[in-house]
Amino acid sequence: MLALRVSKKHLAVKDIEKPDCVDEALVRVLLSGICNTDLEIARGYAGFNGTIGHEFVGVVEESTNRALIGSRVVGEINAGCGNCDLCRAGDSRHCPHRTVLGIHGRDGAHAEFLKLPAVNLLRVPENVPDEHAVFTEPLAAACGILERVGVDSSTRVAVIGDGKLGLLCAQVLVLTGANVLQIGKHSSKLRIAERRGIEIATPKLAAKRKQQFDVVVEASGAASGFGLALDLLRSKGQLVLKSTFHGKTELDTARIVVDEISIVGSRCGRFSPALDLLKKAAIDVDSLISEEYSLSDGVHAMRRAATKGVMKVLLRPA
Amino acid sequence: MLALRVSKKHLAVKDIEKPDCVDEALVRVLLSGICNTDLEIARGYAGFNGTIGHEFVGVVEESTNRALIGSRVVGEINAGCGNCDLCRAGDSRHCPHRTVLGIHGRDGAHAEFLKLPAVNLLRVPENVPDEHAVFTEPLAAACGILERVGVDSSTRVAVIGDGKLGLLCAQVLVLTGANVLQIGKHSSKLRIAERRGIEIATPKLAAKRKQQFDVVVEASGAASGFGLALDLLRSKGQLVLKSTFHGKTELDTARIVVDEISIVGSRCGRFSPALDLLKKAAIDVDSLISEEYSLSDGVHAMRRAATKGVMKVLLRPA
Repeated sequence: MLALRVSKKHLAVKDIEKPDCVDEALVRVLLSGICNTDLEIARGYAGFNGTIGHEFVGVVEESTNRALIGSRVVGEINAGCGNCDLCRAGDSRHCPHRTVLGIHGRDGAHAEFLKLPAVNLLRVPENVPDEHAVFTEPLAAACGILERVGVDSSTRVAVIGDGKLGLLCAQVLVLTGANVLQIGKHSSKLRIAERRGIEIATPKLAAKRKQQFDVVVEASGAASGFGLALDLLRSKGQLVLKSTFHGKTELDTARIVVDEISIVGSRCGRFSPALDLLKKAAIDVDSLISEEYSLSDGVHAMRRAATKGVMKVLLRPA
Repeated sequence: MLALRVSKKHLAVKDIEKPDCVDEALVRVLLSGICNTDLEIARGYAGFNGTIGHEFVGVVEESTNRALIGSRVVGEINAGCGNCDLCRAGDSRHCPHRTVLGIHGRDGAHAEFLKLPAVNLLRVPENVPDEHAVFTEPLAAACGILERVGVDSSTRVAVIGDGKLGLLCAQVLVLTGANVLQIGKHSSKLRIAERRGIEIATPKLAAKRKQQFDVVVEASGAASGFGLALDLLRSKGQLVLKSTFHGKTELDTARIVVDEISIVGSRCGRFSPALDLLKKAAIDVDSLISEEYSLSDGVHAMRRAATKGVMKVLLRPA
């Protein structure tokens, strides 16, 4: 089968063996999405070698859970050991022995087939097209913010970054009834937010609203976004870090201590709230799709995904 | 009256006018304590010029609240505007218009007299000697951790730093029933913690216990302490920043995001829980006192307080 693989920072579509499943489910991939994390991994982040990709929708072809066979599914990307306290409590996202689809110790989704434990798979509601279902993982990551900080209709929220993740975050947060400001540099992207009732501003304009926000989500991946986030937060405000920066960023600990700011890391979210939002068509994901390529053009597709202004790039096997 | 004052990074004991009180209470200082923040202010931190010092116990000599006159008191150091939402909710610690005793816009406690709003003053229980009462402010800061993070008997806590603040933090936290590890480099200081049933370790030994702690309190003021704190935290753990660093420190955002760490700033705490602990003699503060000087020797006392190994230095007016 074809798979888009990284080996020592070299990216190539290769013809490899179909996964050997044993205890896990075999999923035929219908569509996969290129995430910024894929681009970082191709540059050497996380030291991963193998098939990349962790956003997908597919059909189960083999499983010991026979009821799943033939189902259209998405899959939680963290596969836990099943034995540690965290896994037993039903949350393998922080299992110290976990593998992560296309990121850590497990081949990923930019391939004709992938394998995952059956317990990771969730059926996709019939009314959700593949092109929406493929957003379940990043949308779950946006929903994950609500597992980490409290947001309600009285919360003043700013989301820094108007990329795919930033736009998903703002759309999720505005559904709580909160006032949400999306901050970005691209008027065409900001318009996607504006159509959902989200206020918009450039970083320059937003910077005037010092200390006016209860929660600021940093989803730009730029160190400058981190500085702006701190400026916008009120005392005792919460800065949610959704994206990592290349290398390290500088931290002004005096601001954190004196104004009792919290910095809250947020990574993966649960899939079911995301699938529920997609079922209700409550999130505009169509506007986030830029281009679609055949998996065999995966290397070119990755280059496109890294191009300024390009948003979600999808890969379709065969 | 005598007062220990900073002017453009120059420190001197000066003879100045007694405070003119009008609406505020006049307090005759019995004893004041030198805090590391005083040392930082003398080096230019916060750009403060005036009388330094914010830890004190004194006697009310004048007040529009006549019931207070003659009372032995300690005082909350943040004086709010009284009109903003925060002040109206009874917490002026983050009032944007606040002045702060000996730190921001208000002369401090290393003086024969100080003034504070009567509402900031709390009577000291009779059984608490001056030498203990003078620790109310830093002890309240230690208690303030419990306003910011949940700690109970199931929480694994590490406190980095065996200075005055670190030792107060660990003593407060161990009273919750939590397992507390105090990390420091000075065996004589660590022994103070050990006598209170707190486990102790050097940074080198502690570093072997990677990702084993739910809450880590950074009270060393050293950038290396920040790095160690991150290493010790489990996934979804909470790093409480109690002390600021000189300048900026580097932040590894990937660790924060991937392991969903929270970094929580903590500054001032409420005084009443601290006074309650002092009344119950639940905290060993005697062991934290190194030296006492007359206020007139304030400059020398500050030098001593900045000397390695010296802990709390007290100043006694007249």
